[in-house]
Amino acid sequence: MVLGTTFVLVFVPASAAVGILFALTQWYLVSYVTVGKSRVSNNGYMQVDEDGIDDASVNAKCAEIQAAISEGSEAFLTTMYTYLAIFMGLFSVIIFVFLASVGGFSFDRQPCDYDQTKSCPSSIASAFFSTVAFILGALTSTLSGYLGMKIATYANARTTLEARKGVGKAFAIAFRSGAVMGFLLAANGLLVLFLTILVFKLYFGDDWVGLYEAITGYGLGGSSVALFGRVGGGIYTKAADVGADLVGKVEQNIPEDDPRNPAVIADNVGDNVGDIAGMGADLFGSFAESTCAALVVSSISSFGNDKNFVAMCFPLLISSAGILVCLLTTLVATDIMSVKGVKEIEPTLKRQLVISTVLMTVAIFLISWFGLPETFTINVVGHEAKVVKNWHIFFCVGSGLWAGLIIGFVTEYFTSNAYTPVQDVADSCRTGAATNIIFGLALGYKSVIVPVFAIAVAIYLSFSLAAMYGIAVAALGMLSTLATGLAIDAYGPISDNAGGIAEMAGMSHEGFAIGSAALVSLALFGAYVSRAGIASVDVIQPKEFVGLIVGAMLPYWFSAMTMKSVGKAALAMVEEVRRQFRTIPGLMEGTTKPDYKRCVKISTDASLKEMIPPGALVMLTPLIVGTLFGVETLAGLLAGALVSGVQIAISASNTGGAWDNAKKYIEAGASEHAKSLGPKGSDAHKAAVIGDTVGDPLKDTSGPSLNILIKLMAVESLVFAPFFAANGGWLFRG
Amino acid sequence: MVLGTTFVLVFVPASAAVGILFALTQWYLVSYVTVGKSRVSNNGYMQVDEDGIDDASVNAKCAEIQAAISEGSEAFLTTMYTYLAIFMGLFSVIIFVFLASVGGFSFDRQPCDYDQTKSCPSSIASAFFSTVAFILGALTSTLSGYLGMKIATYANARTTLEARKGVGKAFAIAFRSGAVMGFLLAANGLLVLFLTILVFKLYFGDDWVGLYEAITGYGLGGSSVALFGRVGGGIYTKAADVGADLVGKVEQNIPEDDPRNPAVIADNVGDNVGDIAGMGADLFGSFAESTCAALVVSSISSFGNDKNFVAMCFPLLISSAGILVCLLTTLVATDIMSVKGVKEIEPTLKRQLVISTVLMTVAIFLISWFGLPETFTINVVGHEAKVVKNWHIFFCVGSGLWAGLIIGFVTEYFTSNAYTPVQDVADSCRTGAATNIIFGLALGYKSVIVPVFAIAVAIYLSFSLAAMYGIAVAALGMLSTLATGLAIDAYGPISDNAGGIAEMAGMSHEGFAIGSAALVSLALFGAYVSRAGIASVDVIQPKEFVGLIVGAMLPYWFSAMTMKSVGKAALAMVEEVRRQFRTIPGLMEGTTKPDYKRCVKISTDASLKEMIPPGALVMLTPLIVGTLFGVETLAGLLAGALVSGVQIAISASNTGGAWDNAKKYIEAGASEHAKSLGPKGSDAHKAAVIGDTVGDPLKDTSGPSLNILIKLMAVESLVFAPFFAANGGWLFRG
Repeated sequence: MVLGTTFVLVFVPASAAVGILFALTQWYLVSYVTVGKSRVSNNGYMQVDEDGIDDASVNAKCAEIQAAISEGSEAFLTTMYTYLAIFMGLFSVIIFVFLASVGGFSFDRQPCDYDQTKSCPSSIASAFFSTVAFILGALTSTLSGYLGMKIATYANARTTLEARKGVGKAFAIAFRSGAVMGFLLAANGLLVLFLTILVFKLYFGDDWVGLYEAITGYGLGGSSVALFGRVGGGIYTKAADVGADLVGKVEQNIPEDDPRNPAVIADNVGDNVGDIAGMGADLFGSFAESTCAALVVSSISSFGNDKNFVAMCFPLLISSAGILVCLLTTLVATDIMSVKGVKEIEPTLKRQLVISTVLMTVAIFLISWFGLPETFTINVVGHEAKVVKNWHIFFCVGSGLWAGLIIGFVTEYFTSNAYTPVQDVADSCRTGAATNIIFGLALGYKSVIVPVFAIAVAIYLSFSLAAMYGIAVAALGMLSTLATGLAIDAYGPISDNAGGIAEMAGMSHEGFAIGSAALVSLALFGAYVSRAGIASVDVIQPKEFVGLIVGAMLPYWFSAMTMKSVGKAALAMVEEVRRQFRTIPGLMEGTTKPDYKRCVKISTDASLKEMIPPGALVMLTPLIVGTLFGVETLAGLLAGALVSGVQIAISASNTGGAWDNAKKYIEAGASEHAKSLGPKGSDAHKAAVIGDTVGDPLKDTSGPSLNILIKLMAVESLVFAPFFAANGGWLFRG
Repeated sequence: MVLGTTFVLVFVPASAAVGILFALTQWYLVSYVTVGKSRVSNNGYMQVDEDGIDDASVNAKCAEIQAAISEGSEAFLTTMYTYLAIFMGLFSVIIFVFLASVGGFSFDRQPCDYDQTKSCPSSIASAFFSTVAFILGALTSTLSGYLGMKIATYANARTTLEARKGVGKAFAIAFRSGAVMGFLLAANGLLVLFLTILVFKLYFGDDWVGLYEAITGYGLGGSSVALFGRVGGGIYTKAADVGADLVGKVEQNIPEDDPRNPAVIADNVGDNVGDIAGMGADLFGSFAESTCAALVVSSISSFGNDKNFVAMCFPLLISSAGILVCLLTTLVATDIMSVKGVKEIEPTLKRQLVISTVLMTVAIFLISWFGLPETFTINVVGHEAKVVKNWHIFFCVGSGLWAGLIIGFVTEYFTSNAYTPVQDVADSCRTGAATNIIFGLALGYKSVIVPVFAIAVAIYLSFSLAAMYGIAVAALGMLSTLATGLAIDAYGPISDNAGGIAEMAGMSHEGFAIGSAALVSLALFGAYVSRAGIASVDVIQPKEFVGLIVGAMLPYWFSAMTMKSVGKAALAMVEEVRRQFRTIPGLMEGTTKPDYKRCVKISTDASLKEMIPPGALVMLTPLIVGTLFGVETLAGLLAGALVSGVQIAISASNTGGAWDNAKKYIEAGASEHAKSLGPKGSDAHKAAVIGDTVGDPLKDTSGPSLNILIKLMAVESLVFAPFFAANGGWLFRG
């Protein structure tokens, strides 16, 4: 171990600062595309070529639309944040009261768990700091989501504008915009967390166990916001999308994103608040949680006992290095090997993943070698401490990183229309919507196999080498290329939203979010088990098995709620859109404008109302189960939810992705086979549209929300573990 | 404890004999409906009223059709049994070699596990008897499926005939036919098992551990046949059904089961070989496996140690009493409170469930009180033996029984069009197929909640009271009303197949099969853990967790295979049916007859070919995992597959059931609401047909096959446990 404390104190904030500066530079480059008053209106929400409406008359309308989207997004997020503020206030009180009650609301310092001769902060102080960390996490997550949304709405018009100059330019702008979000989020999360640790340390002093336990609140805060962002945003975007498509595309036969469609603004607002803000908050949550999990586990191990600050900060060093690696990687795409044509986009995005993974492997090796003691121990409750060597940790982090790459490629294989799986689904549209749905569902189920094996190998390796610490750093490994992953992810909706380059191929990166969520949850689960003092989670015991089977059911309950919500909201939207087409004269001819605001209001109201039951399910389940049934049943429940949720999440998002791309495949008609299924409006295409519509809530609402379900229940259990261990299990006691 | 050995030796075979006699009486009553040459042809495969084709010309065609169905069913099952015979032969060798290898293929008697001073049969003898039990189980299961198919084809024509005399008469015939199957199967399974035990006992003498371990082969044999029956039959029936519907109903606009449809015979054959023969084998497997699990657990507990034969036979006494209870219950439906009109059918079927459950509760109480010692112990590997009182066992068996009733009612609530869930799904057809699919999927997910809680409560109760023995007898409790359950279940396809009473409401009983499968698998899992000598299945250990997450993935892999198989086979069927409509002149006019045989051949070939990969997945996974990764990983895998498989199985079968009934709801148009969605051919109805088609493979292929997946992997692990414990875990060793 070579690195010293000074290095950490400089390297972490410096990397974060570099990340933020880089993001700002990219933003500057994006803003460099001057958007004059008359040009901003060419924002691509119009399918100008297709409809043959002349440019001049369209400009005025479009400027209005662009403003409406920005306004709608802002209004929705503001309302949602108001709700969130109330929720956060209430939940802060719950955290404080529950945790303070463990020590009987005493202000007296207490003997430390790890050394009864020393004195540690009072439980009321621990509760206070946990609550502060929770609020900080929530605020950082909110900021991440908000910035993502701002950048996306900012970038759409510019991307479209550049598309007129060529695909390469448009790609650069869209990708840079994605990078702004990726780097801001990764750097911001790291910086706030690091500063929080330093500040808390002033109070906690040598009580590192208490310090890092309080820090776990940061992860909980981040994920709570992500929950409502994903669920609320997900319902919003899909209610609008499904509603818009069902009437506009299917009944009225007008193109997607046509301004005559009353739901078009709501649909585009949805893309920004759901896909971008929600995803940003989700991945930020994963980062915060896996770091917290690693910190909690190592605080009770030799790093904590030896007060080895550099080794404690290993997770943060990995994330810092990740920012620098992603920066180099991004330069390759934007400056060194820039994109010339549409065909180069997908390979370029893939290359980004490969380059960042390879570079990151080297970085992990260096940090493991120089930043960790040659040998150290990880405590495992109820078992002998695990002796770990620094190169073991290299394999742990690396296995997570490479598993992420594999998952990315598998997701791509199953959802891109360049490969046979999606082409088979498209082909099944020949015999109608029913076979399309059957083949799509089968594809989703099948796409689970390899990712689960990849995750299983990473888990087995890291688990065997370094117990739960290994899992936590494996999760961090997968997330270390977060900035690049987010850039790729955000690039999709941005370029999609900028209708002018709609045919530019994107690359779904959802599998990566789920894969990392699985590792993060397991790490949190391990940290929870440690903190709750459970020696084993033996599923041939009644308490644990009952938890396991009910836990495996929760993702279904949650998905039922979110899908039904989307369905209901979409039906309301359909009625409204139909009403407008029926009652507003001149709407189809384009001479009158629709009442966009009512549609926006329907989506907003529906999503805010409907996000509460699934949100409550996730937030209350650990509290109820822990309090009534105790820590063992809760442990079983977390394991069940984790192993079942991962499967549904992967299959739902890949099924949805495949249907989406099968439809695009038929529409694009790029091959003989695709042409034989098309053109737009053919029976096969109609069948494909039905699949696409069914896939919407699967891939953008219930699937991604499940990531949060499994992570959030685990981190919440971790935060409340002392309470459950002390006071839980009312019903199963005795 | 009052009952003696003589009582058992009389009561069990007598109950079985009574069951068989009762079945034969029912068969006689069914056959009493004379079917003259000219009348047999009125078998309802023609929608005579609808098409207005005159009776005389139809008669000749129909007689031909009826013969073709019978012939097709027989031919398919014969071919399948040939395949099965080869498979059984191979697998018998595997069982024998693997188990004999544990003792080095030695003929020498060895010291007993439970008492090293005594000598027990050689491992080669144990292997031999296990193999024999396996073959007996397989043969009994085959016989059950075959008889079910024979009765169903026999009953269809008669049911239709009686329908002309009134609903009450038709109901009685259909229900009696179901009862023939239910009683034959339950009594036959019990009798063969009891006789096998008595015969094996002659050789094993006092080595009850060895005896009942060998008996587990019976469960494995039964379930192996069920696997291929469910998967092969499921692919057969749905390939034909989907193919027939897609061209006939959707493209050519001819009614369901119209003889002009070339796939109509294949479709009807499918109903008999898939729904009836498959389900019979499945439930027989559950019965055999749960009995075996209870026997294995109690053989190493005080019953076995004290050589208490009456107490050992407790599981068989429960099943015997079940036959008598179901007999009384059946008389209520057929003789005491017979059905007068269509509206009474559903209440009557429900009453059957309630009556049998109430009567059975009394029977369980009596048997527990008089057939068990007041206090006894159940061994738990690695823990203290559990002290159990006889009334504890009453609660164990009773909790399983009542959980089954709850599951039955929930299934009914979510899949019958008398309640809002299905009506909501039907209503969502207004906005097209996409919302129908979304609402249907959400309904299926939601329908999992209560059954899982019911199963969890039963598990917690029985697990806490009597460890794994409690679970096994809870499973037996749920299955004790098997004969009634099967009668209700078989009634559905029979009356459905007899087109004349198609509008007679049925009652899906699929949830019961899955619920019992969950309990059975857990009991087998527990028995496996005992036999493999695993003290705990701690999922915060790498080996177990990796097993858990991969296990939870297996149902997805398996479903992907089966759904894709149905899809592929259906596409082939569609091509053939289209070809016949295109190339055979006079087909639509009814002047030429279609080439039924080619369609039958397509279904037969497809199902036989396609059942191999999913079958291999289920059969090979425990062998591979146990051999390469060891008993702990296999334990995790079984737990994961169980908790994940239950959810998918329930949601898939209820989603499919809801779509089916939503379609029927619109077609029947029995309420104002239903009328507003119809009539047949309306847009909403077309959307409903798409949902129904998607649901076919979910509810009749992949869903039900998952029962077998979870049970079979568990029983296979149990049978091979000694081998894995001695020689397994090549890769994870050291």
